[in-house]
Amino acid sequence: MTVKTLTVARDLLATNKQAAEAIRAELRRRGILGVNLLSSPGSGKTALLEALADLFRGRHRMAVIEGDVETERDAERIRRKGVPAWQITTGGACHLEARMIGKVIGEVPADIDFLFIENVGNLVCPASYDLGEDLRFVLLSAPEGDDKPAKYPAAFLSADAVILTKADLAPHLPFDPERARAEALAIKPGLEIFTVSALRGEGVDGVAGFLVASLDRLRSGRA
Amino acid sequence: MTVKTLTVARDLLATNKQAAEAIRAELRRRGILGVNLLSSPGSGKTALLEALADLFRGRHRMAVIEGDVETERDAERIRRKGVPAWQITTGGACHLEARMIGKVIGEVPADIDFLFIENVGNLVCPASYDLGEDLRFVLLSAPEGDDKPAKYPAAFLSADAVILTKADLAPHLPFDPERARAEALAIKPGLEIFTVSALRGEGVDGVAGFLVASLDRLRSGRA
Repeated sequence: MTVKTLTVARDLLATNKQAAEAIRAELRRRGILGVNLLSSPGSGKTALLEALADLFRGRHRMAVIEGDVETERDAERIRRKGVPAWQITTGGACHLEARMIGKVIGEVPADIDFLFIENVGNLVCPASYDLGEDLRFVLLSAPEGDDKPAKYPAAFLSADAVILTKADLAPHLPFDPERARAEALAIKPGLEIFTVSALRGEGVDGVAGFLVASLDRLRSGRA
Repeated sequence: MTVKTLTVARDLLATNKQAAEAIRAELRRRGILGVNLLSSPGSGKTALLEALADLFRGRHRMAVIEGDVETERDAERIRRKGVPAWQITTGGACHLEARMIGKVIGEVPADIDFLFIENVGNLVCPASYDLGEDLRFVLLSAPEGDDKPAKYPAAFLSADAVILTKADLAPHLPFDPERARAEALAIKPGLEIFTVSALRGEGVDGVAGFLVASLDRLRSGRA
């Protein structure tokens, strides 16, 4: 990379950070917990959000901002659960940026508890962009392989929690959940790690409990 | 994106294209078929290359350039098959560029038939970078979902062949191979599509046959 490119990249990240801080301040002021979901394509981000929508129904209110290179599909899936959703299509770009979230944030209802931001499916680039979230989840599905944390360390280093998804497929795969867990913890000791099968509804309650505890901390000013 | 950023991106792609053309000319001069493999993390690029190494043993010679953000793991897997391999670690960058290939190409034995380049696991960014290959394979694994071609169109548009991997997992998944196929063909009509299970060795012979036919065309000057 040339010096000029590096400078442009640094300027972009500084601008992004400013926009992200404004979003974080606004969400905290409203008492909303912002959660940014990162993973490879097809790791089960939307399926996890669908399962959380089922679990939270009647107890907690959520909204979702969906990021994709193309299509409205993920927002449509979320809306079918009765949850408000906005689709951002990046038209080629490989990650969401805070200014994209800033354009939508005004439309988000003030009385929700959780604002989930589902990033573009990409385990590399989105790690560098703060979207103003309070929590960052990195998902890793069993079929992707237990060797991925060390191969994509930036995402795992930036995570508050790692969610091992598609656990129902593990019996059919050469996947060792203990190795995945050990690799993630070697990158970031103390990381919260959950194992779920959204298809079977298993383990989603653990993630929900973590979210509710985080929301309580945010609202009592201990975030 | 600012005008300055767009200009830098365009200049980078132009420089990359020049380096790629030099690599393509060099490979063709040596009668080597260059193949660039693109996919999400964990779609089975390395497993496909391992299966091809088994199939080609004693009949065709291959070499592999591995691209990863971090670790030498994939090159080590390939070397265990008796195939020469070079690992490029990008140290954070989300794709390979032609100049990275240019630094390694001089070490590649002159008497091989196939040079495979396994890109960084990322279904977005690598699509924009020509590495001087003659063929581009895009892999999509069954657990990623049949809705991915329309969500990540640039990769599929740039492909010469799409390889649907991990077919052995399809019975355990809500995955419709016909939908995946139809979506890919809607983006690029006439695309070659193969279905494989590298774990079971199924369908790899079809990919091998396509590679050998492409090599024959290259060497007879009909590429």
